[in-house]
Amino acid sequence: MTDTLRTDGRTPAQMRPVTIERGWSAQAEGSALISFGNTKVLCTASFTPGVPRWLSGKGTGWVTAEYSMLPRSTNERMQRESVKGKIGGRTHEISRLIGRSLRAVIDTKALGENTIVIDCDVLQADGGTRTASITGAYVALVDAIEWARAQGHLPRNAKPLTDSVAAVSVGIVGDTAMSDLAYVEDSRAETDMNVVVTGSGAFVEVQGTAEGVPFSRDELNELLDLALGSAAELTELQRAVLAEERAA
Amino acid sequence: MTDTLRTDGRTPAQMRPVTIERGWSAQAEGSALISFGNTKVLCTASFTPGVPRWLSGKGTGWVTAEYSMLPRSTNERMQRESVKGKIGGRTHEISRLIGRSLRAVIDTKALGENTIVIDCDVLQADGGTRTASITGAYVALVDAIEWARAQGHLPRNAKPLTDSVAAVSVGIVGDTAMSDLAYVEDSRAETDMNVVVTGSGAFVEVQGTAEGVPFSRDELNELLDLALGSAAELTELQRAVLAEERAA
Amino acid sequence: MTDTLRTDGRTPAQMRPVTIERGWSAQAEGSALISFGNTKVLCTASFTPGVPRWLSGKGTGWVTAEYSMLPRSTNERMQRESVKGKIGGRTHEISRLIGRSLRAVIDTKALGENTIVIDCDVLQADGGTRTASITGAYVALVDAIEWARAQGHLPRNAKPLTDSVAAVSVGIVGDTAMSDLAYVEDSRAETDMNVVVTGSGAFVEVQGTAEGVPFSRDELNELLDLALGSAAELTELQRAVLAEERAA
Amino acid sequence: MTDTLRTDGRTPAQMRPVTIERGWSAQAEGSALISFGNTKVLCTASFTPGVPRWLSGKGTGWVTAEYSMLPRSTNERMQRESVKGKIGGRTHEISRLIGRSLRAVIDTKALGENTIVIDCDVLQADGGTRTASITGAYVALVDAIEWARAQGHLPRNAKPLTDSVAAVSVGIVGDTAMSDLAYVEDSRAETDMNVVVTGSGAFVEVQGTAEGVPFSRDELNELLDLALGSAAELTELQRAVLAEERAA
Amino acid sequence: MTDTLRTDGRTPAQMRPVTIERGWSAQAEGSALISFGNTKVLCTASFTPGVPRWLSGKGTGWVTAEYSMLPRSTNERMQRESVKGKIGGRTHEISRLIGRSLRAVIDTKALGENTIVIDCDVLQADGGTRTASITGAYVALVDAIEWARAQGHLPRNAKPLTDSVAAVSVGIVGDTAMSDLAYVEDSRAETDMNVVVTGSGAFVEVQGTAEGVPFSRDELNELLDLALGSAAELTELQRAVLAEERAA
Amino acid sequence: MTDTLRTDGRTPAQMRPVTIERGWSAQAEGSALISFGNTKVLCTASFTPGVPRWLSGKGTGWVTAEYSMLPRSTNERMQRESVKGKIGGRTHEISRLIGRSLRAVIDTKALGENTIVIDCDVLQADGGTRTASITGAYVALVDAIEWARAQGHLPRNAKPLTDSVAAVSVGIVGDTAMSDLAYVEDSRAETDMNVVVTGSGAFVEVQGTAEGVPFSRDELNELLDLALGSAAELTELQRAVLAEERAA
Repeated sequence: MTDTLRTDGRTPAQMRPVTIERGWSAQAEGSALISFGNTKVLCTASFTPGVPRWLSGKGTGWVTAEYSMLPRSTNERMQRESVKGKIGGRTHEISRLIGRSLRAVIDTKALGENTIVIDCDVLQADGGTRTASITGAYVALVDAIEWARAQGHLPRNAKPLTDSVAAVSVGIVGDTAMSDLAYVEDSRAETDMNVVVTGSGAFVEVQGTAEGVPFSRDELNELLDLALGSAAELTELQRAVLAEERAA
Repeated sequence: MTDTLRTDGRTPAQMRPVTIERGWSAQAEGSALISFGNTKVLCTASFTPGVPRWLSGKGTGWVTAEYSMLPRSTNERMQRESVKGKIGGRTHEISRLIGRSLRAVIDTKALGENTIVIDCDVLQADGGTRTASITGAYVALVDAIEWARAQGHLPRNAKPLTDSVAAVSVGIVGDTAMSDLAYVEDSRAETDMNVVVTGSGAFVEVQGTAEGVPFSRDELNELLDLALGSAAELTELQRAVLAEERAA
Repeated sequence: MTDTLRTDGRTPAQMRPVTIERGWSAQAEGSALISFGNTKVLCTASFTPGVPRWLSGKGTGWVTAEYSMLPRSTNERMQRESVKGKIGGRTHEISRLIGRSLRAVIDTKALGENTIVIDCDVLQADGGTRTASITGAYVALVDAIEWARAQGHLPRNAKPLTDSVAAVSVGIVGDTAMSDLAYVEDSRAETDMNVVVTGSGAFVEVQGTAEGVPFSRDELNELLDLALGSAAELTELQRAVLAEERAA
Repeated sequence: MTDTLRTDGRTPAQMRPVTIERGWSAQAEGSALISFGNTKVLCTASFTPGVPRWLSGKGTGWVTAEYSMLPRSTNERMQRESVKGKIGGRTHEISRLIGRSLRAVIDTKALGENTIVIDCDVLQADGGTRTASITGAYVALVDAIEWARAQGHLPRNAKPLTDSVAAVSVGIVGDTAMSDLAYVEDSRAETDMNVVVTGSGAFVEVQGTAEGVPFSRDELNELLDLALGSAAELTELQRAVLAEERAA
Repeated sequence: MTDTLRTDGRTPAQMRPVTIERGWSAQAEGSALISFGNTKVLCTASFTPGVPRWLSGKGTGWVTAEYSMLPRSTNERMQRESVKGKIGGRTHEISRLIGRSLRAVIDTKALGENTIVIDCDVLQADGGTRTASITGAYVALVDAIEWARAQGHLPRNAKPLTDSVAAVSVGIVGDTAMSDLAYVEDSRAETDMNVVVTGSGAFVEVQGTAEGVPFSRDELNELLDLALGSAAELTELQRAVLAEERAA
Repeated sequence: MTDTLRTDGRTPAQMRPVTIERGWSAQAEGSALISFGNTKVLCTASFTPGVPRWLSGKGTGWVTAEYSMLPRSTNERMQRESVKGKIGGRTHEISRLIGRSLRAVIDTKALGENTIVIDCDVLQADGGTRTASITGAYVALVDAIEWARAQGHLPRNAKPLTDSVAAVSVGIVGDTAMSDLAYVEDSRAETDMNVVVTGSGAFVEVQGTAEGVPFSRDELNELLDLALGSAAELTELQRAVLAEERAA
């Protein structure tokens, strides 16, 4: 039916084209430039031996994340947070979400006393920047861990990763539940939900927000169905990208 | 079964004693001192005619919220955010959540060009500070709106409130789903979920986070069942408190 | 004479009703919720073994204080200092005054290398917040020291307290010298003076300020007489409150 | 008696040599470089027509002050407050004291809707920087007002100044009450008092602090006697300096 | 001679491969992703009608620039300036340099009361980030002006651009003057010079700094010769890129 | 020709009267109050044994500088950077320039693990504040080093200074190249250049900026000729001042 077609012609359950350019950065231990349609995020993973002082001596590692948007990633230029002199609530919230999502698939004991900092910098924004960030960050994380193993910072048989992780935004626009909302859809959504899912299909985060009218349990279930489907596609793509030989 | 009893003897679905001291503040247009067990939050609602400049002339009102903890509300003293010179991510996140939750039951057109600022200051913390804040803030909000109506800032027949709103934290501790986690339970929880529900039983926010292992769809459903039950109790209490004559 | 009666019917030398709710906080080592009429301040004392680095190894302890007002403690909501990103001059000034006043009755050698941080958070403001803070903080301080002794952080016979301390604001309103100014009086005062006095009647601080016309030596003396009288009443109340058995 | 002589040979009531270099700055509307012994403060008064927005339309003027120390005005270099990114409590406190002291001799109605900002920058510090600042700032203030009158910003017969103002620090060192404490005396003082006095001998501010043991009423009176004597000398010097023809 | 060859085999006067990807951003009015070897900078130009208040009503436009590095653009991760809460001296200095360089080829009268903000975000850094920024920013600036003309924000015949501008870093490494220093060369340079040159070969900025030993006038001249040669190559490339049809 | 005379009657190559009051500060290890006409800068050098942590154990010293302007050093009062809570780009840029200029004549190995901080505080500004700062700072630096040698912090035969350093601003005003621009000239200059030169006539910094039209190589050469001439005069004055016996 034409009325279920979206602005860009997608069906409700269809994601935008997703691409992952692994190893984009020549400097970082792991990196990925990920696109969900026009949304482009550069994810880097920086590995350093040692942990912050408050963790020292406990035999566990640390994974954290920082998210930021370039000032002109958006349709209207935003002021830089460095110029404002403080980080806004939304930035804090997303940085914390990315960090929690990655730590959910990390065995910090197996990581040893090492730190990985993930940076997700949005070069271009068209909705779904946080879910693209998580999905791309996982690829960067894997490569940083492999780099550390190759350098001898991790034992050969250490398994710090317990699963993979990917994320997708779903929402109710008009009366239709849709996957991977573009900006124009997101701004009209009644309900907006970000779902973070492991490769084995369990939930890491479910964050549903009524932007307009509150939502019912049936709507919640419909959104979760969509999210699990799209997350499985992203998991598949991550596996394919990581199966390729990494460039030196 | 004894093994389903909690530290303080509650059953899994049982909330801690909840009290709401309406009109605690002599200064604010609306206020409530709410307790969920040892958690105590002072909620005030400040009504001012007019809206921020970016909303001016649109005929709609504005409701926003700020959350903060006293430095010694917790077991170990925390540094004040005013002394640090910046607001942390957690504070930002909770302030935004409270604001969104209240706006979900506000018809900003019916509020007219007026602003209500909700302050939720945690005097004592023992888990569930954000859900107590939302639940208490609703009571303060109702009284501030009634004050404004009595002062003539709102038409006599304006109905800015479309529903009531309350919130509860639920989680999986050990293998048991429990409602209204105290701090000691929250810190051992595998999964932690904050659920904001309207008086008519629809969802405003569902924020579930795997702190340990990812959670399954069955677990998600069990937690939502618990949350809806407790929210209904809170809705009942709000109604009872608001049904009393307000002190001058 | 009726013209010496004040707005609330007090005589010039009469304080508002003063109450001290000792041990209000379940978390802090010492605490007191003090009221001077409608002014309500929550004072907590946080004891921690050890001292800041610059004092380390000198065998002396440290007592410091922080003062803050809740945003809606006042008649019109104030912006939070954490949101402004900096602490105002008035806050700094009062925090320093409280700290100096308490240190005047502390023998830091006898305290040993331990730190006590006093937090005075104004829940409701109606004049005299700084003098209520000092008076309540002393009670919290005593309990924190007793807690530390009971825990073995202080020798059984250590006497870190050399005296008690209390404070009162006095001022000239119209042509009348008055004690314990309420906000409406304070805002009309020609001269405003905060006086901090030990239990034995000596001065710790005398801060007199001409808000309107400068004041004469006779007026200064009249104000000091009033202050010493009210301080003696506060000292009496502190003793009575501290003489009670402390709740577990 | 030799034991009443001070480090630099002064008697207890004797001030250090005080000099006022009026009109030091080629840029400011009024200025004075004042010395109390080795303490040197550059005071400038900046006159601008108009008042801050919150005063606009009330027909009254505004006088405010800012105090600061050069990083190497002191014996050990201090970090700049601009580098720290925030102003310390002591700086705030002194800036507020200077502003209040000057406003005590200003009729803001007679000043009209004009603003005068006083800057007191300590070039070299050896005790008494706040009292030297107030004393020098008064001279700068007089010249800025005369400048404004000459420029036609004030009516020819306006009298914004109601009196002169000067300040001195006094204290008890050992058992002796002394006037105009140098740094080495101030750091050993049991009690330290800053007294701001008008030309006609009334008090604007009395700020006495027990640094060591609390002080008695007799000691307070002895200090006030000393302060009034020294303030009268400063008043005399201000008059002499202002009686001279001002350089173009 | 082999000893004049550089790490990457270049001759002293030879630049690294330079590429300009015009119109990289789907959001900005003008944009270019420029590479000088491994140095990659995303330059965007944001056009908005109107000027800052201090310029309003003067009939002239405003062009300004902000420079920033992604935290992992460098070999070791740097802390974000937004996290530090302040912008460092180097960032300020380069932002100002880029702004001045572009304004040197702008006729602000012809630009009318419009503002263009240039953002130069370094995605990957290997020396020469400020000179690559200026060179790329010029391309983005041209496209933003053409966009504004097409949208009717500028008269059809307005000529806000008076020339083109490009920049190159030159330096003395060992005893050899070299063009377009890579990071490893820059860190060993005795003298480092950034030169900004118009398309017609005049100087906009010459910033030479002795990192090791001071430099002679002959060395200065040798460096300027190199810089003019490389700048001419960059001017040629800018022309070629801008001569292409712009993608919709 | 009269048309080459400047506002104050100087010839193009003529500097304003330059005076250096060595040892102005009673507190600092080295100091100089330098005047270039009405521009007056207080330069102090603070010597402390030891180095910042990042340099520790490398056997080399550290010299750094901070520049600041008093708020009323200028014709219109500027807001303090401490009040703004951040340091502006211009201040950063000049502080860095002064530091680099001094380090260019320092052998940090010969300085040993010691730190010298130079503070340049502009008391009065009339153009050329950065060049006066560098020229005066060198004198303060020499005295701080001699002080350290006398105190035994440096070996008797250590030679941390490799040369002297001085600076001058030159520019093209109208069509004439001029030395030591006063503020009124600087604000009309087409090209402005700050040149830092060693006592032996080599360049430390050359910073030329086209404020209006870009400048040619001939103009650049004419400006460098002027700068070298004036710098030689400053070098001569520095030698004369330093040849005098230093006051105790």
